[in-house]
Amino acid sequence: MSLSLFLRLRKWPQKKHKDHGMSCRIKRTRFQSFVDDAEPEKAKERLDALRAWMRAEKVDAFVLPRSDAWQNEYLRACDERLKWLTGFTGSAGLLVVLAKGAALFVDGRYTIQARQQVRGDLFEILQVPHVKPQDWLAERLEASARVVFDPWLMTKGQAGRWRKALKKRGAAFEPVWTNPVDALWADRPPEPDTPIFLQPESLAGRSVSEKLKDVKRALAERQATHALITLTDSISWLFNIRGRDIPHTPVVLAFALVPLQGPARLFIAPQKVPDDMQKALAGHVEILAPEMLKTAIASLPGEARVLIDPAHAAEALYLWLEEAGVSVVEGEDPCLMPKACKTEAEQEGMRAAHMRDGVALCRFLAWLEEAAARGEVDEIDAVAKLEAFRIETAEALGSALFDISFDTISGAGPNGAIVHYRVTCDTVRPLKPGSLYLVDSGGQYRDGTTDVTRTVFIGPPDLTPRPEQKFHFTLVLKGMIALSRIRFPEGTTGAQLDGLARQPLWQHGLDYDHGTGHGVGAFLSVHEGPQRISRGGDVALRPGMITSNEPGYYREGHYGIRIENLILCRKAERREGEERAMLSFETLTLAPIDRRLIEPSLLSAEERAWLDAYHAHVARVILPLLEELGDTSAQEWLKKACAPL
Amino acid sequence: MSLSLFLRLRKWPQKKHKDHGMSCRIKRTRFQSFVDDAEPEKAKERLDALRAWMRAEKVDAFVLPRSDAWQNEYLRACDERLKWLTGFTGSAGLLVVLAKGAALFVDGRYTIQARQQVRGDLFEILQVPHVKPQDWLAERLEASARVVFDPWLMTKGQAGRWRKALKKRGAAFEPVWTNPVDALWADRPPEPDTPIFLQPESLAGRSVSEKLKDVKRALAERQATHALITLTDSISWLFNIRGRDIPHTPVVLAFALVPLQGPARLFIAPQKVPDDMQKALAGHVEILAPEMLKTAIASLPGEARVLIDPAHAAEALYLWLEEAGVSVVEGEDPCLMPKACKTEAEQEGMRAAHMRDGVALCRFLAWLEEAAARGEVDEIDAVAKLEAFRIETAEALGSALFDISFDTISGAGPNGAIVHYRVTCDTVRPLKPGSLYLVDSGGQYRDGTTDVTRTVFIGPPDLTPRPEQKFHFTLVLKGMIALSRIRFPEGTTGAQLDGLARQPLWQHGLDYDHGTGHGVGAFLSVHEGPQRISRGGDVALRPGMITSNEPGYYREGHYGIRIENLILCRKAERREGEERAMLSFETLTLAPIDRRLIEPSLLSAEERAWLDAYHAHVARVILPLLEELGDTSAQEWLKKACAPL
Repeated sequence: MSLSLFLRLRKWPQKKHKDHGMSCRIKRTRFQSFVDDAEPEKAKERLDALRAWMRAEKVDAFVLPRSDAWQNEYLRACDERLKWLTGFTGSAGLLVVLAKGAALFVDGRYTIQARQQVRGDLFEILQVPHVKPQDWLAERLEASARVVFDPWLMTKGQAGRWRKALKKRGAAFEPVWTNPVDALWADRPPEPDTPIFLQPESLAGRSVSEKLKDVKRALAERQATHALITLTDSISWLFNIRGRDIPHTPVVLAFALVPLQGPARLFIAPQKVPDDMQKALAGHVEILAPEMLKTAIASLPGEARVLIDPAHAAEALYLWLEEAGVSVVEGEDPCLMPKACKTEAEQEGMRAAHMRDGVALCRFLAWLEEAAARGEVDEIDAVAKLEAFRIETAEALGSALFDISFDTISGAGPNGAIVHYRVTCDTVRPLKPGSLYLVDSGGQYRDGTTDVTRTVFIGPPDLTPRPEQKFHFTLVLKGMIALSRIRFPEGTTGAQLDGLARQPLWQHGLDYDHGTGHGVGAFLSVHEGPQRISRGGDVALRPGMITSNEPGYYREGHYGIRIENLILCRKAERREGEERAMLSFETLTLAPIDRRLIEPSLLSAEERAWLDAYHAHVARVILPLLEELGDTSAQEWLKKACAPL
Repeated sequence: MSLSLFLRLRKWPQKKHKDHGMSCRIKRTRFQSFVDDAEPEKAKERLDALRAWMRAEKVDAFVLPRSDAWQNEYLRACDERLKWLTGFTGSAGLLVVLAKGAALFVDGRYTIQARQQVRGDLFEILQVPHVKPQDWLAERLEASARVVFDPWLMTKGQAGRWRKALKKRGAAFEPVWTNPVDALWADRPPEPDTPIFLQPESLAGRSVSEKLKDVKRALAERQATHALITLTDSISWLFNIRGRDIPHTPVVLAFALVPLQGPARLFIAPQKVPDDMQKALAGHVEILAPEMLKTAIASLPGEARVLIDPAHAAEALYLWLEEAGVSVVEGEDPCLMPKACKTEAEQEGMRAAHMRDGVALCRFLAWLEEAAARGEVDEIDAVAKLEAFRIETAEALGSALFDISFDTISGAGPNGAIVHYRVTCDTVRPLKPGSLYLVDSGGQYRDGTTDVTRTVFIGPPDLTPRPEQKFHFTLVLKGMIALSRIRFPEGTTGAQLDGLARQPLWQHGLDYDHGTGHGVGAFLSVHEGPQRISRGGDVALRPGMITSNEPGYYREGHYGIRIENLILCRKAERREGEERAMLSFETLTLAPIDRRLIEPSLLSAEERAWLDAYHAHVARVILPLLEELGDTSAQEWLKKACAPL
């Protein structure tokens, strides 16, 4: 899945395509929905109710970002406050409500969608960063105005910027501990109560007590006495636990307080913790109800020095720490780096998940080639079929698909050029012969997370792609291969590698507006820090890190091209004459790259050799598994798809 | 000139090579010295005197970094306090003196040199960052100890780190306003009193009042009322003035206070400002004695908000601002970005300077090829001859060499592998047939600054380089060409380009331990921010920026290879089919690259075409000038050196 700022995918229909004449036969699959359940028509009454509360509480403005207490990418239904109030379903946005007037701030990805989804008479749509919400509000306030916000929904840094901007104006920026939306939202879904479960040590590769030792070592180095861990994937990693509260991302929503000595405390509703887990964690982890977190912070000794990550922790936690009178040590979440460097067991699990996922994807691509050439497939059909192949293949191979790892991006023709596209019944397009189709998807398996993009040419064998389609596809492929083949010394950052993937496009005045690669978790979030391969990637790549490799090219109104593999950073074998220990990437993803779209004359001998070797490897691994499943048509297809160029 | 952390070149003899049997015929040239004038034998008495002062003042420790009040790279003789006290001549170091014991902290470049230069019984040599000076000192202090430092020699950030580390220990870190070394240093050289001079607007391309307008706009944007400018090259740029106080870098040592309204104030000894300049600056600049700076700060209105760059400004200035009770706005020096983006006039000046410098360098290389093949040249001879060619050529072409832009790095054989090498009478080596010779040098001309490295094979025409010499040289060349040829969109950072220059080496397990490129000033510092092409280069490259392009390879004990051109970032001409406005580099440096060292089979067709085109361009520009000078032997040599591969 592509990223820009870890992009947070949600729907972004560029236009209503109702005129495509497609009936929306499939409204939802097990893991993905194609219909919009927002209620923009109720925005007026909801806004009125909020303003009544504001008047009663003498509040001049209320600020509501799309967020939850953990700054998650995907939200639980009960945290979709912005959607409930406005009807806007984008993944990033911030609402400011005044006594008169309200403004919804979205970034460039979402301006069109926001205009389509929310009532223009109620909400002004403004684009960040062109307009800064703080400045916009400050200009509209009297001095001595009161602005309130929910301190769980902003990090300390965010709240600080608001406070500073409003202070200049003489206005106060105050936390409100009960979010007014929650009080007004009569049928607000309950917090999910699904039990959490253990990630077995055989898959995690390290025990909780070993991981806790590392965190405690980091505490000692920073001269801190406690770590307050707030990132949900850090907590899931640290305690080898997973959950089902959030779509597509098996994280556990909890907080943890890890002292330098003694047991760690995990704050989570006890009814979500099965007995066997209580036992498994006993000794080094105490489980406490979330309500106890405030008390636990308040009871910290006065000389406590609490490590907390300012980039991710909610303002609310800072306020509690301040109230407790303890010292705050700001620093990176101590789980980030060890979580990113996968254990041998996690690497093995990721390889196994990619084999399974590769089989499903090859079956899908084999089916697609025929069905789409007959003109029988639309974007939603494709999503449904791919999901079905993933479910069926995993089961047939003795595993199970836990979830998809994000809403599949299924972009036919011009929809493929919308980087953040998510198909709905309103936007669905047929896959037409002669066009390109981009499919970006992934699976969550108990042993690993996948994320893969393929772009294929739609049409019968006698139809050939246009030269420009092949030209652009091959430039993207060259960038992808450059990164796949690179060797580099320890200490090299993602930014230093980013240009290599772009160079073939750059030389022709082309580029793509997203990063080249993001970190990927092991049965965790499909977007994981701290490393990335992009302009801002200032973290050195280390052995064990898994990152996507996904250059692209987007021709607005025509087609999108993206080729994405996951790559595992490893120590490279030392070759003769080499003076330094080098790192290189092992490609995990196993699926052919559409040979019809490649212009061989644009590839160097080395690039061609890499591609042929990759295809031979895919065939070697996937063919026996297709044979095991008895899928002969996919076998035939794969043999052809993996033939040397 | 290579950089690592804007490397600050000084002597670094790896070993004493007295056994080379070379008499040191040349002790110094007009601009460079090959002898060491430190006085390590006097360290004991000087240290005793300092300790007497410490006892009298009840000081437990004194901290002395190698620095001046502006954090310059090169220091005036009167600012060489560390050298005076210890005998150490490296460009970076910090001394801590206790009642018993003293430690000199240097980085990995200087550990060997420091051990050779200072008395081991007086000074312990410790390597940063392995040992942190603050922690080392904190461990040796009683609680309630008093540590003092000169607040002009540390930035606010540096002083803050010391204060914090010592506070944990209960110790105080106090500024001392009169540096005790100055009081003890009986024959301390006076501050130079050389007059400053104007950089004509025809060369600068912008008037002082235009530049001041830009600074004032930046002030308004940051809601500041004043800018306190402390970087010497910023001040020189802003007021179109230059000076002679510091070797090789024509900056003016001064401070400036620029208010949002009214004239700027330049704090500099009035006797250094000639009458014509007083007139030229009148109206928008007031000239005040340096002693007036404190008063000027103290007289700022209470509501003043003073912009200051925490990365460069001395702690002393922060203390004065604090005393004045004004608000401090921390931010990047507002001159940095406009200074880096050269005006058309500066670009033209740089081109002209490079033509002149190219002629001198070609004459030198032509001479070298013959003389060195006869075995008649050593590293110092080469430096002297190159300087003489620069002086003579500039004069013959109606200009003048103002200075060299840094001490020439002249590395024969194994000395070439020492990245920070500077030749002295102790280290000088002959240029031996069959070896490589690396020469990194530059000139300061009134219209521009040059910085160029060439690596050449020494030997008669019938001697051919060893295959590994050609292999390594060609890999370095491929990286240099990659950067020369690259096109990239606006917003691309130096870090994103850095990997392109390293990739050919990386693929063979090789690399170099310095950045690929540093910014270069226009008749200013040869090391200039904010952009660089390196791992940490997070600033986007913009049209008008001039950067070096200098990949290298260093084989310890054998040879060093570096090829360095200066490149000017420009808007690229739009080619058909290009969708984005692209940037590219124009190569400014004009000197052939040794064809004997190139292995043509390792070059792609495009790389070969670039090289041939570059050589043709060099010949086209330089040959007519050599003809003008009547240097026929250099003409003959250049024609051959620039022939197609």
